[in-house]
Amino acid sequence: MSDKPFDWGRTDRSEEEAFGTQVAAAVLNAAADAVVACDREGNIRLWNPGAERIFGFSAIEAAGQSLDIIIPGRLQARHWDGFRKMMASGQSRYPQGHLLSAPGRRKDGSQLSIEFTVVALRDGEGRISGLVAVMRDVTARFEEMKALRKQLREGAPA
Amino acid sequence: MSDKPFDWGRTDRSEEEAFGTQVAAAVLNAAADAVVACDREGNIRLWNPGAERIFGFSAIEAAGQSLDIIIPGRLQARHWDGFRKMMASGQSRYPQGHLLSAPGRRKDGSQLSIEFTVVALRDGEGRISGLVAVMRDVTARFEEMKALRKQLREGAPA
Repeated sequence: MSDKPFDWGRTDRSEEEAFGTQVAAAVLNAAADAVVACDREGNIRLWNPGAERIFGFSAIEAAGQSLDIIIPGRLQARHWDGFRKMMASGQSRYPQGHLLSAPGRRKDGSQLSIEFTVVALRDGEGRISGLVAVMRDVTARFEEMKALRKQLREGAPA
Repeated sequence: MSDKPFDWGRTDRSEEEAFGTQVAAAVLNAAADAVVACDREGNIRLWNPGAERIFGFSAIEAAGQSLDIIIPGRLQARHWDGFRKMMASGQSRYPQGHLLSAPGRRKDGSQLSIEFTVVALRDGEGRISGLVAVMRDVTARFEEMKALRKQLREGAPA
Protein backbone atom coordinates (compact mmCIF):
# COMPACT_ATOMS: atom_id res chain seq x y z
CA MET A 1 0.00 0.00 0.00
CA SER A 2 1.42 3.33 -1.06
CA ASP A 3 0.41 6.77 0.09
CA LYS A 4 2.55 8.29 -2.63
CA PRO A 5 0.47 10.53 -4.92
CA PHE A 6 0.12 9.14 -8.41
CA ASP A 7 2.60 10.60 -10.85
CA TRP A 8 1.21 10.56 -14.35
CA GLY A 9 4.64 11.12 -15.77
CA ARG A 10 3.52 13.95 -18.02
CA THR A 11 2.95 17.65 -17.69
CA ASP A 12 -0.73 18.27 -18.42
CA ARG A 13 -2.20 17.09 -15.13
CA SER A 14 -5.89 17.69 -15.87
CA GLU A 15 -5.66 15.65 -19.08
CA GLU A 16 -3.71 12.99 -17.22
CA GLU A 17 -6.25 12.85 -14.44
CA ALA A 18 -9.13 12.49 -16.88
CA PHE A 19 -7.28 9.63 -18.57
CA GLY A 20 -6.56 8.03 -15.19
CA THR A 21 -10.25 8.20 -14.32
CA GLN A 22 -11.11 6.56 -17.67
CA VAL A 23 -8.60 3.76 -17.08
CA ALA A 24 -9.81 3.16 -13.53
CA ALA A 25 -13.45 3.08 -14.69
CA ALA A 26 -12.57 0.58 -17.45
CA VAL A 27 -11.02 -1.83 -14.93
CA LEU A 28 -13.87 -1.38 -12.46
CA ASN A 29 -16.58 -1.87 -15.09
CA ALA A 30 -14.97 -4.93 -16.64
CA ALA A 31 -15.41 -8.55 -15.63
CA ALA A 32 -11.68 -9.31 -15.93
CA ASP A 33 -10.75 -8.80 -12.27
CA ALA A 34 -13.07 -8.97 -9.28
CA VAL A 35 -12.98 -5.66 -7.40
CA VAL A 36 -14.75 -5.71 -4.03
CA ALA A 37 -14.78 -2.91 -1.46
CA CYS A 38 -16.08 -3.11 2.09
CA ASP A 39 -16.54 -0.63 4.92
CA ARG A 40 -14.92 -0.74 8.40
CA GLU A 41 -17.45 -3.34 9.50
CA GLY A 42 -16.64 -5.67 6.61
CA ASN A 43 -19.91 -5.06 4.80
CA ILE A 44 -19.75 -5.02 1.01
CA ARG A 45 -20.07 -1.55 -0.51
CA LEU A 46 -18.84 -2.20 -4.06
CA TRP A 47 -19.11 -5.35 -6.15
CA ASN A 48 -18.04 -5.13 -9.78
CA PRO A 49 -18.90 -7.32 -12.81
CA GLY A 50 -15.72 -9.35 -12.22
CA ALA A 51 -16.95 -10.22 -8.72
CA GLU A 52 -20.32 -11.19 -10.22
CA ARG A 53 -18.58 -13.47 -12.71
CA ILE A 54 -16.23 -15.13 -10.22
CA PHE A 55 -18.53 -15.55 -7.21
CA GLY A 56 -21.97 -15.77 -8.84
CA PHE A 57 -23.66 -13.13 -6.67
CA SER A 58 -25.06 -10.09 -8.51
CA ALA A 59 -24.16 -6.59 -7.28
CA ILE A 60 -27.71 -6.25 -5.97
CA GLU A 61 -27.39 -9.48 -3.98
CA ALA A 62 -23.96 -8.65 -2.57
CA ALA A 63 -24.48 -4.98 -1.63
CA GLY A 64 -24.62 -4.51 2.13
CA GLN A 65 -23.89 -8.18 2.88
CA SER A 66 -21.02 -9.29 5.09
CA LEU A 67 -17.89 -10.59 3.35
CA ASP A 68 -18.85 -13.92 4.94
CA ILE A 69 -20.90 -14.66 1.80
CA ILE A 70 -17.64 -15.49 -0.03
CA ILE A 71 -15.63 -16.99 2.87
CA PRO A 72 -15.92 -20.72 3.68
CA GLY A 73 -17.35 -21.14 7.19
CA ARG A 74 -14.24 -22.75 8.68
CA LEU A 75 -12.12 -19.72 7.67
CA GLN A 76 -14.40 -16.92 8.83
CA ALA A 77 -13.01 -16.57 12.39
CA ARG A 78 -9.45 -16.28 11.06
CA HIS A 79 -10.53 -13.82 8.40
CA TRP A 80 -12.20 -11.48 10.85
CA ASP A 81 -9.27 -11.66 13.24
CA GLY A 82 -6.92 -10.38 10.51
CA PHE A 83 -9.53 -7.90 9.27
CA ARG A 84 -9.99 -6.31 12.71
CA LYS A 85 -6.24 -6.09 13.30
CA MET A 86 -5.79 -4.26 10.00
CA MET A 87 -8.67 -1.88 10.83
CA ALA A 88 -7.19 -1.14 14.30
CA SER A 89 -3.60 -0.62 13.15
CA GLY A 90 -4.47 0.98 9.81
CA GLN A 91 -1.82 -1.22 8.22
CA SER A 92 -1.44 -4.57 6.58
CA ARG A 93 0.98 -7.00 8.19
CA TYR A 94 2.18 -7.94 4.72
CA PRO A 95 4.79 -6.14 2.64
CA GLN A 96 3.67 -3.82 -0.14
CA GLY A 97 2.16 -5.69 -3.07
CA HIS A 98 1.99 -8.98 -1.18
CA LEU A 99 -0.16 -11.44 -3.08
CA LEU A 100 -2.55 -13.20 -0.68
CA SER A 101 -4.24 -16.49 -1.45
CA ALA A 102 -7.19 -18.17 0.20
CA PRO A 103 -10.08 -20.46 -0.52
CA GLY A 104 -13.29 -18.64 -1.42
CA ARG A 105 -16.92 -19.70 -1.78
CA ARG A 106 -19.30 -19.18 -4.69
CA LYS A 107 -23.02 -18.49 -4.48
CA ASP A 108 -23.72 -22.15 -5.32
CA GLY A 109 -21.60 -23.22 -2.33
CA SER A 110 -18.71 -24.57 -4.41
CA GLN A 111 -15.19 -23.66 -3.37
CA LEU A 112 -12.61 -21.80 -5.45
CA SER A 113 -9.03 -20.67 -4.96
CA ILE A 114 -8.48 -16.94 -5.08
CA GLU A 115 -5.42 -14.73 -5.18
CA PHE A 116 -5.87 -11.14 -4.13
CA THR A 117 -4.25 -7.88 -3.15
CA VAL A 118 -5.70 -5.54 -0.51
CA VAL A 119 -5.59 -1.74 -0.51
CA ALA A 120 -6.86 0.51 2.30
CA LEU A 121 -9.49 3.18 1.69
CA ARG A 122 -8.92 6.31 3.77
CA ASP A 123 -11.15 9.22 4.72
CA GLY A 124 -10.20 12.90 4.38
CA GLU A 125 -8.16 12.72 7.60
CA GLY A 126 -6.18 9.66 6.51
CA ARG A 127 -8.08 7.25 8.76
CA ILE A 128 -8.82 3.83 7.33
CA SER A 129 -12.46 3.73 6.19
CA GLY A 130 -12.57 0.39 4.42
CA LEU A 131 -10.68 -2.04 2.22
CA VAL A 132 -10.60 -2.90 -1.48
CA ALA A 133 -9.58 -6.33 -2.68
CA VAL A 134 -8.68 -7.12 -6.31
CA MET A 135 -9.32 -10.85 -6.72
CA ARG A 136 -8.61 -13.54 -9.31
CA ASP A 137 -9.87 -17.09 -9.61
CA VAL A 138 -6.74 -19.28 -9.71
CA THR A 139 -8.51 -22.59 -9.02
CA ALA A 140 -7.17 -24.34 -12.15
CA ARG A 141 -3.56 -23.54 -11.36
CA PHE A 142 -3.99 -24.35 -7.66
CA GLU A 143 -5.42 -27.78 -8.53
CA GLU A 144 -2.56 -28.41 -10.97
CA MET A 145 0.00 -27.61 -8.25
CA LYS A 146 -1.80 -29.89 -5.81
CA ALA A 147 -1.83 -32.74 -8.35
CA LEU A 148 1.91 -32.32 -9.02
CA ARG A 149 2.67 -32.44 -5.28
CA LYS A 150 0.52 -35.54 -4.87
CA GLN A 151 2.27 -37.29 -7.78
CA LEU A 152 5.63 -36.51 -6.19
CA ARG A 153 4.55 -37.79 -2.77
CA GLU A 154 3.26 -41.01 -4.27
CA GLY A 155 6.29 -41.45 -6.50
CA ALA A 156 4.05 -41.87 -9.54
CA PRO A 157 5.62 -41.48 -12.97
CA ALA A 158 5.08 -38.09 -14.64
CA MET B 1 -14.38 -7.75 -21.30
CA SER B 2 -17.84 -6.49 -20.49
CA ASP B 3 -19.70 -3.58 -22.02
CA LYS B 4 -22.37 -3.88 -19.35
CA PRO B 5 -22.74 -0.64 -17.38
CA PHE B 6 -21.61 -0.91 -13.79
CA ASP B 7 -24.45 -1.56 -11.38
CA TRP B 8 -23.63 -0.18 -7.96
CA GLY B 9 -26.39 -2.22 -6.43
CA ARG B 10 -27.90 0.67 -4.51
CA THR B 11 -30.24 3.55 -5.20
CA ASP B 12 -28.25 6.74 -4.59
CA ARG B 13 -26.24 6.75 -7.79
CA SER B 14 -24.25 9.96 -7.25
CA GLU B 15 -23.03 8.73 -3.86
CA GLU B 16 -22.27 5.33 -5.38
CA GLU B 17 -20.37 6.88 -8.24
CA ALA B 18 -18.28 9.01 -5.90
CA PHE B 19 -17.46 5.89 -3.89
CA GLY B 20 -16.62 3.98 -7.07
CA THR B 21 -14.24 6.76 -8.10
CA GLN B 22 -12.60 6.62 -4.67
CA VAL B 23 -12.17 2.83 -4.89
CA ALA B 24 -10.76 3.03 -8.41
CA ALA B 25 -8.31 5.77 -7.40
CA ALA B 26 -7.17 3.70 -4.39
CA VAL B 27 -6.32 0.73 -6.63
CA LEU B 28 -4.63 2.92 -9.24
CA ASN B 29 -2.56 4.85 -6.69
CA ALA B 30 -1.44 1.74 -4.80
CA ALA B 31 1.58 -0.41 -5.49
CA ALA B 32 -0.34 -3.66 -4.96
CA ASP B 33 -1.19 -4.34 -8.62
CA ALA B 34 0.60 -3.00 -11.68
CA VAL B 35 -1.84 -1.04 -13.84
CA VAL B 36 -0.49 -0.07 -17.27
CA ALA B 37 -2.44 1.58 -20.08
CA CYS B 38 -1.27 2.08 -23.64
CA ASP B 39 -2.69 3.81 -26.70
CA ARG B 40 -3.54 2.23 -30.09
CA GLU B 41 0.13 2.28 -31.06
CA GLY B 42 1.19 0.39 -27.94
CA ASN B 43 2.86 3.39 -26.32
CA ILE B 44 2.56 3.64 -22.54
CA ARG B 45 0.13 6.32 -21.37
CA LEU B 46 -0.35 5.30 -17.73
CA TRP B 47 2.09 3.59 -15.37
CA ASN B 48 1.07 3.29 -11.73
CA PRO B 49 3.14 2.74 -8.55
CA GLY B 50 2.54 -1.02 -8.81
CA ALA B 51 4.15 -0.99 -12.27
CA GLU B 52 7.06 1.01 -10.84
CA ARG B 53 7.48 -1.58 -8.08
CA ILE B 54 7.26 -4.65 -10.31
CA PHE B 55 9.22 -3.49 -13.35
CA GLY B 56 11.63 -0.95 -11.84
CA PHE B 57 10.88 1.86 -14.32
CA SER B 58 9.49 5.08 -12.83
CA ALA B 59 6.35 6.61 -14.33
CA ILE B 60 8.51 9.37 -15.81
CA GLU B 61 10.79 6.81 -17.48
CA ALA B 62 7.92 4.68 -18.82
CA ALA B 63 5.60 7.42 -20.12
CA GLY B 64 5.49 7.49 -23.91
CA GLN B 65 7.75 4.44 -24.29
CA SER B 66 6.74 1.36 -26.26
CA LEU B 67 5.55 -1.65 -24.28
CA ASP B 68 8.74 -3.28 -25.60
CA ILE B 69 10.52 -1.98 -22.50
CA ILE B 70 8.89 -4.78 -20.46
CA ILE B 71 8.78 -7.53 -23.14
CA PRO B 72 11.77 -9.86 -23.61
CA GLY B 73 13.20 -9.39 -27.12
CA ARG B 74 12.36 -12.91 -28.33
CA LEU B 75 8.65 -12.38 -27.52
CA GLN B 76 8.15 -8.94 -29.02
CA ALA B 77 7.10 -10.07 -32.52
CA ARG B 78 4.46 -12.41 -31.10
CA HIS B 79 3.23 -9.72 -28.73
CA TRP B 80 2.73 -7.14 -31.44
CA ASP B 81 1.00 -9.66 -33.68
CA GLY B 82 -1.64 -10.30 -30.98
CA PHE B 83 -1.80 -6.61 -30.10
CA ARG B 84 -2.51 -5.52 -33.68
CA LYS B 85 -5.15 -8.22 -34.13
CA MET B 86 -6.96 -7.05 -31.02
CA MET B 87 -6.78 -3.41 -32.17
CA ALA B 88 -8.16 -4.33 -35.61
CA SER B 89 -11.00 -6.55 -34.38
CA GLY B 90 -11.74 -4.54 -31.23
CA GLN B 91 -11.93 -7.84 -29.35
CA SER B 92 -9.75 -10.17 -27.40
CA ARG B 93 -9.50 -13.74 -28.68
CA TYR B 94 -9.75 -14.92 -25.06
CA PRO B 95 -12.93 -15.47 -23.07
CA GLN B 96 -14.02 -12.84 -20.55
CA GLY B 97 -11.75 -12.67 -17.52
CA HIS B 98 -9.13 -14.91 -19.10
CA LEU B 99 -5.93 -14.78 -17.07
CA LEU B 100 -2.94 -14.40 -19.40
CA SER B 101 0.60 -15.27 -18.42
CA ALA B 102 3.88 -14.34 -20.02
CA PRO B 103 7.49 -13.64 -19.21
CA GLY B 104 8.26 -9.97 -18.62
CA ARG B 105 11.45 -7.96 -18.31
CA ARG B 106 12.53 -5.57 -15.55
CA LYS B 107 14.52 -2.37 -15.99
CA ASP B 108 17.68 -4.19 -14.83
CA GLY B 109 17.19 -6.76 -17.63
CA SER B 110 16.16 -9.61 -15.33
CA GLN B 111 13.16 -11.71 -16.31
CA LEU B 112 9.98 -12.19 -14.28
CA SER B 113 6.75 -14.15 -14.73
CA ILE B 114 3.62 -12.08 -14.94
CA GLU B 115 -0.08 -12.88 -14.90
CA PHE B 116 -2.40 -10.26 -16.31
CA THR B 117 -5.85 -9.38 -17.51
CA VAL B 118 -6.51 -7.00 -20.41
CA VAL B 119 -9.41 -4.56 -20.76
CA ALA B 120 -10.13 -2.38 -23.80
CA LEU B 121 -10.36 1.40 -23.56
CA ARG B 122 -12.99 2.88 -25.87
CA ASP B 123 -13.63 6.38 -27.18
CA GLY B 124 -17.00 8.16 -27.16
CA GLU B 125 -18.07 6.22 -30.26
CA GLY B 126 -17.17 2.83 -28.83
CA ARG B 127 -14.03 2.42 -30.92
CA ILE B 128 -11.06 0.83 -29.19
CA SER B 129 -8.60 3.57 -28.20
CA GLY B 130 -6.14 1.59 -26.13
CA LEU B 131 -5.68 -1.22 -23.65
CA VAL B 132 -5.26 -1.53 -19.90
CA ALA B 133 -3.42 -4.44 -18.33
CA VAL B 134 -3.58 -5.30 -14.63
CA MET B 135 -0.42 -7.27 -13.91
CA ARG B 136 1.02 -9.33 -11.05
CA ASP B 137 4.49 -10.72 -10.46
CA VAL B 138 4.01 -14.48 -10.04
CA THR B 139 7.68 -15.44 -10.49
CA ALA B 140 7.95 -17.31 -7.17
CA ARG B 141 4.96 -19.55 -7.89
CA PHE B 142 6.02 -20.10 -11.50
CA GLU B 143 9.49 -21.23 -10.38
CA GLU B 144 7.95 -23.56 -7.78
CA MET B 145 5.76 -25.17 -10.46
CA LYS B 146 8.76 -25.54 -12.76
CA ALA B 147 10.79 -27.20 -9.97
CA LEU B 148 7.95 -29.64 -9.21
CA ARG B 149 7.69 -30.62 -12.90
CA LYS B 150 11.45 -31.11 -13.11
CA GLN B 151 11.44 -33.33 -10.00
CA LEU B 152 8.69 -35.43 -11.54
CA ARG B 153 10.50 -35.75 -14.86
CA GLU B 154 13.69 -36.81 -13.13
CA GLY B 155 11.93 -39.14 -10.75
CA ALA B 156 13.61 -37.52 -7.79
CA PRO B 157 12.10 -38.13 -4.35
CA ALA B 158 9.88 -35.33 -3.04
